[in-house]
Amino acid sequence: RYGQAELEDQVGVVTGLAWTEVGGELLTIEGVMMPGKGKMTVTGNLRDVMKESISAAASYVRSRAVDFGVEPPLFDRRDIHVHVPEGATPKDGPSAGVAMATAIVSIMTSIPVRRDIAMTGEITLRGRVLPIGGLKEKLLAALRGGIKKVLIPEENAKDLADIPDAVKNGLEIVPVARMDEVLQHALVSLPTPIQWEEDTAALSKRAAALADDDAGVRAH
Amino acid sequence: RYGQAELEDQVGVVTGLAWTEVGGELLTIEGVMMPGKGKMTVTGNLRDVMKESISAAASYVRSRAVDFGVEPPLFDRRDIHVHVPEGATPKDGPSAGVAMATAIVSIMTSIPVRRDIAMTGEITLRGRVLPIGGLKEKLLAALRGGIKKVLIPEENAKDLADIPDAVKNGLEIVPVARMDEVLQHALVSLPTPIQWEEDTAALSKRAAALADDDAGVRAH
Amino acid sequence: RYGQAELEDQVGVVTGLAWTEVGGELLTIEGVMMPGKGKMTVTGNLRDVMKESISAAASYVRSRAVDFGVEPPLFDRRDIHVHVPEGATPKDGPSAGVAMATAIVSIMTSIPVRRDIAMTGEITLRGRVLPIGGLKEKLLAALRGGIKKVLIPEENAKDLADIPDAVKNGLEIVPVARMDEVLQHALVSLPTPIQWEEDTAALSKRAAALADDDAGVRAH
Amino acid sequence: RYGQAELEDQVGVVTGLAWTEVGGELLTIEGVMMPGKGKMTVTGNLRDVMKESISAAASYVRSRAVDFGVEPPLFDRRDIHVHVPEGATPKDGPSAGVAMATAIVSIMTSIPVRRDIAMTGEITLRGRVLPIGGLKEKLLAALRGGIKKVLIPEENAKDLADIPDAVKNGLEIVPVARMDEVLQHALVSLPTPIQWEEDTAALSKRAAALADDDAGVRAH
Amino acid sequence: RYGQAELEDQVGVVTGLAWTEVGGELLTIEGVMMPGKGKMTVTGNLRDVMKESISAAASYVRSRAVDFGVEPPLFDRRDIHVHVPEGATPKDGPSAGVAMATAIVSIMTSIPVRRDIAMTGEITLRGRVLPIGGLKEKLLAALRGGIKKVLIPEENAKDLADIPDAVKNGLEIVPVARMDEVLQHALVSLPTPIQWEEDTAALSKRAAALADDDAGVRAH
Amino acid sequence: RYGQAELEDQVGVVTGLAWTEVGGELLTIEGVMMPGKGKMTVTGNLRDVMKESISAAASYVRSRAVDFGVEPPLFDRRDIHVHVPEGATPKDGPSAGVAMATAIVSIMTSIPVRRDIAMTGEITLRGRVLPIGGLKEKLLAALRGGIKKVLIPEENAKDLADIPDAVKNGLEIVPVARMDEVLQHALVSLPTPIQWEEDTAALSKRAAALADDDAGVRAH
Ligand SMILES: [Ca+2]
Ligand SMILES: [Ca+2]
Ligand SMILES: [Ca+2]
Ligand SMILES: [Ca+2]
Ligand SMILES: [Ca+2]
Ligand SMILES: [Ca+2]
Ligand SMILES: [Ca+2]
Ligand SMILES: [Ca+2]
Ligand SMILES: [Ca+2]
Ligand SMILES: [Ca+2]
Ligand SMILES: [Ca+2]
Ligand SMILES: [Ca+2]
Repeated sequence: RYGQAELEDQVGVVTGLAWTEVGGELLTIEGVMMPGKGKMTVTGNLRDVMKESISAAASYVRSRAVDFGVEPPLFDRRDIHVHVPEGATPKDGPSAGVAMATAIVSIMTSIPVRRDIAMTGEITLRGRVLPIGGLKEKLLAALRGGIKKVLIPEENAKDLADIPDAVKNGLEIVPVARMDEVLQHALVSLPTPIQWEEDTAALSKRAAALADDDAGVRAH
Repeated sequence: RYGQAELEDQVGVVTGLAWTEVGGELLTIEGVMMPGKGKMTVTGNLRDVMKESISAAASYVRSRAVDFGVEPPLFDRRDIHVHVPEGATPKDGPSAGVAMATAIVSIMTSIPVRRDIAMTGEITLRGRVLPIGGLKEKLLAALRGGIKKVLIPEENAKDLADIPDAVKNGLEIVPVARMDEVLQHALVSLPTPIQWEEDTAALSKRAAALADDDAGVRAH
Repeated sequence: RYGQAELEDQVGVVTGLAWTEVGGELLTIEGVMMPGKGKMTVTGNLRDVMKESISAAASYVRSRAVDFGVEPPLFDRRDIHVHVPEGATPKDGPSAGVAMATAIVSIMTSIPVRRDIAMTGEITLRGRVLPIGGLKEKLLAALRGGIKKVLIPEENAKDLADIPDAVKNGLEIVPVARMDEVLQHALVSLPTPIQWEEDTAALSKRAAALADDDAGVRAH
Repeated sequence: RYGQAELEDQVGVVTGLAWTEVGGELLTIEGVMMPGKGKMTVTGNLRDVMKESISAAASYVRSRAVDFGVEPPLFDRRDIHVHVPEGATPKDGPSAGVAMATAIVSIMTSIPVRRDIAMTGEITLRGRVLPIGGLKEKLLAALRGGIKKVLIPEENAKDLADIPDAVKNGLEIVPVARMDEVLQHALVSLPTPIQWEEDTAALSKRAAALADDDAGVRAH
Repeated sequence: RYGQAELEDQVGVVTGLAWTEVGGELLTIEGVMMPGKGKMTVTGNLRDVMKESISAAASYVRSRAVDFGVEPPLFDRRDIHVHVPEGATPKDGPSAGVAMATAIVSIMTSIPVRRDIAMTGEITLRGRVLPIGGLKEKLLAALRGGIKKVLIPEENAKDLADIPDAVKNGLEIVPVARMDEVLQHALVSLPTPIQWEEDTAALSKRAAALADDDAGVRAH
Repeated sequence: RYGQAELEDQVGVVTGLAWTEVGGELLTIEGVMMPGKGKMTVTGNLRDVMKESISAAASYVRSRAVDFGVEPPLFDRRDIHVHVPEGATPKDGPSAGVAMATAIVSIMTSIPVRRDIAMTGEITLRGRVLPIGGLKEKLLAALRGGIKKVLIPEENAKDLADIPDAVKNGLEIVPVARMDEVLQHALVSLPTPIQWEEDTAALSKRAAALADDDAGVRAH
């Protein structure tokens, strides 16, 4: 069953698409969040460029935390682990960036990812989706793996002309230019933005402290 | 006696199965927990992929801590050391992942591991059990080593057709798809889940602090 | 669209100019700032000399923080990530230094960078702009990419004699000797310097603490 | 005199046995403990497998601290340095593990090690003694060096058949299966186990704090 | 203009002298100080021996801080960055040590460095100036670059016999044996030593704390 | 003058003896101590074995701190830098160990080292002096460099038979077996041991705190 679309919508599990010398492949990306101190762990026999794509994805999410309804200090009280099974296979390249970002948004917000969607695209710190290679092989792998909808970079839309009709008929292929679009398609519901002000936070902490003192004082 | 099934059920000692160029072998995995600060040490001449499988196993356990009856902050007050004797032999690969996770659950819960069980399988962060190679050699080693029951990945069940009957008759072979099943077979008893809420924890700490102030005040 | 001038003025996005064996290229540099602890992350398949140019750029900005209206302690409460897409392409050399410094000033001050400007030049810790190579290829890439104005090191002005008139007519080329000039051209508005005294800061913190005590006392 | 049995029983000095291409050799292992912060330093031109054997030995001791009469927090207030002279000679392998553990127990408890004993054996985290190679050469070196008693792994007892009688008559050779046996032979006296409860410790710290408050209050 | 004597006396900018296969060269050394936590950053494509010379220079300055009028704790509240443009050129060797030390004294004291001076010499932790190679090429580069005065190690004074008269007439060449002499020549004014006692500092901090308590008490 | 005996007794400056392919050489070892946080820096183009010998020397001194009149917590409030000029020459081997230890004792106690003494010998954590190679070349270098007295390892005393009489007549050669002897010869005066008890220290800190409270109380 591994290497197939997931059986249910899960938090932190995203299906990416890899291109290898022997064809395309589904790439499961898993993220978990744990009580911790802001540490990021990445495993799965990942080479440097893929590791950097997770770093960029994480900074995209952290720098937009409030848009995703996440209070920034939460990142300091959680550890995140992103893992890409299967551990024996080396993996590289930037094209899983949008999948990484989706996994991190999902675990930070606890919103599940739709199980029948796959995606490919490099991510920038601002959430732009940059083009990738191996589109045909990736779409074939998605079709084989039971995927229904595939998100591809808008700048790869021109390459769809070369894709066999059988593939285009079997998949909903959606070109996307920004992470906002990716998340609209991939998450089962959208996060609710919050207001968060560092000064406000400090102020309310201070207010609470004063209230404490008062309480202590009243007891006299 | 080393390289044989253990003589008693022990906390933190799990028997894995390794595949080498000269056949299968029992692989003892040892974990200990010490008062500490959340540091993880892994030794035993381990190569990167096996080290990463321990990292994934640890995150699986940490992210499910409450399901195992473990309060998450405990991880910050303990150091964990996972060691795979014999130190002179290099070891690699992801297939000891489920054994690593079992060892870590055992030391965190102090529940012993059944001595006559062995296991093989890659673990994912969500606790799925992924398929492995060298099944026949591993089962032969288990039989030779006095093991009674072997847990294998469900996706390897189809490979049992190629295993000699003598082996299948001498061992109870159990295909498993998830860590829950692994722990049901491997631990002498099951951990009891707890409720744990970060906010609750903070609240009760705060309540205790207030109570202190009160106590101080009453002394006037 | 990637590899073209940006569509709008953005905070932290600067267009640099790279020189490769196959010609010049626009190099998008992205910076984001996040609540954090003063950590600096740099990604994008950067080699050591480019990494060091970001380090020098950051120290230039930090050591002049008050001139940019930034209170120095802010650097300890923020993490900065500078990323240079496209992650699959290795990048090296010191000539993106002024662009790096501009990106960091922009994210620290939240002042957007003009979208139709590109720049090239090594930076020193004091904000001097040192000469670079590949001027012709870089200017051609700027023209192709829809850039209107290009900042070049003053010491490269003498090389303009070799640049075709078509290029010089299509671009406003501005030789600059110091970062002050760069920022005047690149930012949509100029930062307002502040006064900041470590001792003053400590003093005012202390004053606030005393005021607190008073407040607490009045409650009796 | 170096490379001979020690002249007196010392704290933290243990004689191991090395096997080299030119025969066996006595290996002095030295440990010292210093006021510190829990840092472990290992020197003496040690290769990775020997370094890992010290790490395993240290975790064995830390995880059993109370059995050795050592309060676990002591490890956080001490630095430990294990050194294996002679610094110009590279050293490797796991077979000094039991000697490392003995040295660490000795420095943590201040109990001296008998000067006329030598030992060889890999250690596991649980304190099991695993078999080693080069037994004959090691025993010859012990005899030459004036050693009276040698501890060897129980699983190497079968190899004693190949050892010349002259060696077996000149040395008391003791097969051991666990560290408990090693320490009984090697230390001049046995440590006294203590009770230690994290919660008790916290409680008594809290009690002390309350007592302080009381003292402060009584002064009114 | 780069590679020439500076146009004005600046804080933290020192002209060193490098020797390369194609002759001597001026080497600008830049230091900046920022509010921070005692971190030292060195950049400019520096190889290990030059990095170590900065480390030795910094320890020379730190260990003599009071002689330079600098309170030692200041080093813990500042970050220092030493950069040697041009980033694309690798640089190595110990002979910029005295220039490094001069830059660090200048930024710690805010005393500018005379713009028309250059220097070469290895530094020791005690501030001795050790001899260097390539004297002739370095002096020629100084002359070419508009330098007026060059400080050279006293032990190189004997090599002046081989230097052409044109060079010796065009430059004031000063042999120096210790950093004291270097600073007398290089800084526009000399730092004023201070008294600083760790215990005194602690005492006065404590006195201040007591004064606070008094203030709080008077408010009753 | 460099490479000769020092002109005056200095704190932290020790003359070691190196053996190179072209003969023996004086090796100046310099240590300085700075207000800090317990950091140890070693520079001078040192290879691993020499670095480890400094580490062993430092642990020898730290673990015997009270014997040298040094309160152990001082090590946490000081940084130490050991440097071996000349930075361009790689240096290796364990034979400068006793010189390193002497330098560290000198800087921790502020007791100067006699200027006309040189020494060679590997050090152990317990302060034993182990034999070295190249004795003849080292003694010749000492004689040439104006040294009066040379400390050599006792186990090298047998090698003196091969040393020319001219050398033995020109130098006082002292075989030593332990660091105590080294320090008696090398330091201009001997440190005075102190008593130091961790518990006492904690107690007296607590007493001081109580006294504070009292002071505060009396102010009512
Ligand atoms: Ca696969
Ligand atoms: Ca679109
Ligand atoms: Ca084996
Ligand atoms: Ca199953
Ligand atoms: Ca491109
Ligand atoms: Ca200009
Ligand atoms: Ca030897
Ligand atoms: Ca036995
Ligand atoms: Ca140049
Ligand atoms: Ca002079
Ligand atoms: Ca020399
Ligand atoms: Ca002697």
